[in-house]
Amino acid sequence: MATHRFQPTHYHTAIGAHAPVLHIASGDTVITTTVDAMGGDASGQQVTPGGNPQTGPFFIEGAEPGDTLVVHFDRLTLNRDSGVTATVVAANVVDPSFARELPAQQRITWQLDHAQGMATVTDSGGKLDGFTIPVRPMLGCFGVAPPRGQAISTATSAEHGGNMDYKGFEEGVTVYLPVYQEGALLFVGDGHAAQGDGELNGDALETSMDVEFTVDLIRGKSTQGPRMENEEYLMASGIANSLPEALQIATTELARWLERDYKLSANESNVVLGTSIRYDIAEVVDPQVHIVAKISKAALATLTK
Amino acid sequence: MATHRFQPTHYHTAIGAHAPVLHIASGDTVITTTVDAMGGDASGQQVTPGGNPQTGPFFIEGAEPGDTLVVHFDRLTLNRDSGVTATVVAANVVDPSFARELPAQQRITWQLDHAQGMATVTDSGGKLDGFTIPVRPMLGCFGVAPPRGQAISTATSAEHGGNMDYKGFEEGVTVYLPVYQEGALLFVGDGHAAQGDGELNGDALETSMDVEFTVDLIRGKSTQGPRMENEEYLMASGIANSLPEALQIATTELARWLERDYKLSANESNVVLGTSIRYDIAEVVDPQVHIVAKISKAALATLTK
Amino acid sequence: MATHRFQPTHYHTAIGAHAPVLHIASGDTVITTTVDAMGGDASGQQVTPGGNPQTGPFFIEGAEPGDTLVVHFDRLTLNRDSGVTATVVAANVVDPSFARELPAQQRITWQLDHAQGMATVTDSGGKLDGFTIPVRPMLGCFGVAPPRGQAISTATSAEHGGNMDYKGFEEGVTVYLPVYQEGALLFVGDGHAAQGDGELNGDALETSMDVEFTVDLIRGKSTQGPRMENEEYLMASGIANSLPEALQIATTELARWLERDYKLSANESNVVLGTSIRYDIAEVVDPQVHIVAKISKAALATLTK
Amino acid sequence: MATHRFQPTHYHTAIGAHAPVLHIASGDTVITTTVDAMGGDASGQQVTPGGNPQTGPFFIEGAEPGDTLVVHFDRLTLNRDSGVTATVVAANVVDPSFARELPAQQRITWQLDHAQGMATVTDSGGKLDGFTIPVRPMLGCFGVAPPRGQAISTATSAEHGGNMDYKGFEEGVTVYLPVYQEGALLFVGDGHAAQGDGELNGDALETSMDVEFTVDLIRGKSTQGPRMENEEYLMASGIANSLPEALQIATTELARWLERDYKLSANESNVVLGTSIRYDIAEVVDPQVHIVAKISKAALATLTK
Repeated sequence: MATHRFQPTHYHTAIGAHAPVLHIASGDTVITTTVDAMGGDASGQQVTPGGNPQTGPFFIEGAEPGDTLVVHFDRLTLNRDSGVTATVVAANVVDPSFARELPAQQRITWQLDHAQGMATVTDSGGKLDGFTIPVRPMLGCFGVAPPRGQAISTATSAEHGGNMDYKGFEEGVTVYLPVYQEGALLFVGDGHAAQGDGELNGDALETSMDVEFTVDLIRGKSTQGPRMENEEYLMASGIANSLPEALQIATTELARWLERDYKLSANESNVVLGTSIRYDIAEVVDPQVHIVAKISKAALATLTK
Repeated sequence: MATHRFQPTHYHTAIGAHAPVLHIASGDTVITTTVDAMGGDASGQQVTPGGNPQTGPFFIEGAEPGDTLVVHFDRLTLNRDSGVTATVVAANVVDPSFARELPAQQRITWQLDHAQGMATVTDSGGKLDGFTIPVRPMLGCFGVAPPRGQAISTATSAEHGGNMDYKGFEEGVTVYLPVYQEGALLFVGDGHAAQGDGELNGDALETSMDVEFTVDLIRGKSTQGPRMENEEYLMASGIANSLPEALQIATTELARWLERDYKLSANESNVVLGTSIRYDIAEVVDPQVHIVAKISKAALATLTK
Repeated sequence: MATHRFQPTHYHTAIGAHAPVLHIASGDTVITTTVDAMGGDASGQQVTPGGNPQTGPFFIEGAEPGDTLVVHFDRLTLNRDSGVTATVVAANVVDPSFARELPAQQRITWQLDHAQGMATVTDSGGKLDGFTIPVRPMLGCFGVAPPRGQAISTATSAEHGGNMDYKGFEEGVTVYLPVYQEGALLFVGDGHAAQGDGELNGDALETSMDVEFTVDLIRGKSTQGPRMENEEYLMASGIANSLPEALQIATTELARWLERDYKLSANESNVVLGTSIRYDIAEVVDPQVHIVAKISKAALATLTK
Repeated sequence: MATHRFQPTHYHTAIGAHAPVLHIASGDTVITTTVDAMGGDASGQQVTPGGNPQTGPFFIEGAEPGDTLVVHFDRLTLNRDSGVTATVVAANVVDPSFARELPAQQRITWQLDHAQGMATVTDSGGKLDGFTIPVRPMLGCFGVAPPRGQAISTATSAEHGGNMDYKGFEEGVTVYLPVYQEGALLFVGDGHAAQGDGELNGDALETSMDVEFTVDLIRGKSTQGPRMENEEYLMASGIANSLPEALQIATTELARWLERDYKLSANESNVVLGTSIRYDIAEVVDPQVHIVAKISKAALATLTK
């Protein structure tokens, strides 16, 4: 149960079986940093090419294909005072005729007020100056080495993780990932100070971050993609080609979770889901889209007592 | 500003230019009742064939095509102690291979505890007995007569409203609907005591309801589908063939609202949406699906001060 | 087996239970005319408002809900020398970024050479003058009164038919339609001299037409949407919200046809479909899209001998 | 303009920057062989693990990122007397309720009659024995090394090619591929003796093949995915997450081809496409789907004279 401090010196923009930067054990904690999506570090200086560069990979001793890697995000901390967002929504999230009227893409800067937990536009030169939203730090991209000898761009995502862009990947969440390669090979990066549902503008409030996480292993048992858990919800990711398929996968994985781990019958899990499921639309502008299905632990508790 | 009490004697399962049951004026309030989706009234007796039978239509004096009908739901009150739900999710909301394992559809009964605001399964004969969720009364289906001389089944929805099944159609919400026919011809029905996102099982917690609503008119100005407003959010409906199109329409309508009524530039509305939009997946198992896009009035307030 | 000549005096732009213009018997033939999509007749004069106005409805004696109406298109004949097309593809059939560059919609005129069977652009004032394609007359819109007391706009389509826009609805094809109302109530209209797959520009080569068709009934047996047959193929329509669903329905209906009428086992029909199915993308710009699945009668013949 | 005979000794199931097996020049011809999707060679023996194993990569001297690689398939020849197909369509190509009735997947063997050009089922033990379809040899999977240091599984496809499964990749076709890596790094494999549209059963009539192809380069000019040409058609691939997006990309690429190389204005290309486009649904069961848009060279010829 060691705690490792790791300062990255290089980054990856494809998630694959790259040489590990650190070997850690199940139960260990890592304290490290991530650069922003454009490769900028805590000082705001670009230290690596952009495209969601990842810190890692971390080799988890004993992780074998077929296991589940458990990652608990202990702390996600803003480590500089500014972030940027793009200004224009992607053409595919508005009506095709409306897309024709969209303005040209720009980037604007936000000041991050760590004490108040707020972010404010500072340099738009117009009415937007002063626009203020709450910060809610999260990681946009992380994952493990994928199967079949593949190396997959951090522009996209799949069952192994990658560019998932879910606002729920925040401090306190526990994530379950399938292991495909020996050592799992965990990468982390792409900090967001805040993000709208769907990440419509193609990016979130992008910034560098200090990250502390703890890993664990579940042996000989694996999911078909990421699952998450926090105090309030069980959550299952549907990462897929389209929103309908993402919804299908998220719903199915949540049903499987209830049936296999909570020992509900198919009928019981269907009633729970049908009356109580909530969906978050995490990501709709990347090559793969992402819907999260979640179920309240409070509702479940009335069933299993 | 009269208040009308109206007790329905017949119901409609297609929304069209049917004979009005009551003429009311802008500013008037109507207190009436709706049967449940299967045609059951407050006594639990079936009084009309099923299929989301509607109370109405109400003719609003002075409403002309091109106007907006404003409907404020003043009170939505459960009027009996029981509701039912289907037990099995629709085949299209789970992975096609998982769909093959779904059990046979049944209906189960819930007891509605008005005082505690909770609903509990009572007759499943198994582990589900005692499963308890909060009630949150809402109307699944309402709308105005559609354009082009059409009569559209209450199994589906479109810009005129219909079977929209959004959990946000609850007490306190204000809904804006486009007027296509003289008098608008408003129908209401399909009470839900509670509903999961997407209405996965093909129905919600179906029950009869007492409904009180107040209407108003905005002359000479119309939307391209339903919009809603409550204390916390501006909301726009995307009712469409598929989830991607529903998301496009909801996002576009919300952008138009910000740009036309809140006088934001395209750039400003895009930044607001990109960083702060939230989506609800309202309905995914009806012939048309429904996504609601919403934006926090608190975030907007920092922009417009 | 009478032959009726019917000259329409009024038209419908919603398909519903309108008053029949003619009662005919099973086996009878009707010779009539249809106006073009904008309401123009054989003289080119607009005689009714646009929007795919329909000739009919024809009441088929003895047709009952649950029956199948068989319509054989004996002759589809151009009856004037000109047609028009829109010039620009719909925004939803090109990449969203490319959609932003589309020019403004116009209409151009084509000369129809009945003898040569060719259509040539005549008035574009540019490089397009002389652009020549083969004519292939077809009906874009026809159908029967839908279920549930609905009246459905001829802008869209469903299981009852409507604006299906399939190039295969040409002379010599036999169409099978489900009967929902007594007398079936058949409408026909929207002649196309030629049409690209998908009807990308929102219309085809629109023109008026002389139509001769013969009806028949199959009692007590119904399909879940249109099926077709010609000398070469069995064809099943998938009319749905989206291309993936249209493909699912078309494939399923073709499988059902092989299994129920050709008495193939599920395994056998799956092998036939998997190795030999062909799809046509009929319509992608209307409210409902349309894919046709077809199977060669020649391939089938090797199986059943 | 050398001709190289190359006998593979190993194969790849991910397309990436693997070590080249042969360096060839622009204008050169390669005569080689491919194993079937399961790794079986001309003798029917499995010589490598399955999963669309590829022969290559071939390094084309002088090919640079930003160029176009031109591949002409001179000869695609069956090299053994048998092939296999799966027997059951994928769950996603039929209605979800129908998917529940699908039988269990099996594989059946076909005899390939090279002289007659026909394939016949031989071992089904049932009514299928004797089912006969024409052979039409094609390559299901080929492509060049993708961008960003990725290695992409031959189970899927993208702009670089991969598992595209289009029946038009047959003898006589010329394919244009974007070059992302120095030398392009061309892979070929996955011979199909015949294939239904969409490759519904998850595979085609799988067999090994002798392949002869000739390469050329177009310098400093690149497409956004595969384009093809044969005597009759210009064709553009839309490889995407979903059928609607695949159709958008295919249509857009064909429009760009007409506008950039055939010097049509946007208006002209839109009229040509709207009246004359044809689509083939190539692949619907792989992780990425594939639609091909095509336009008749004969129609084009009337425009440009």
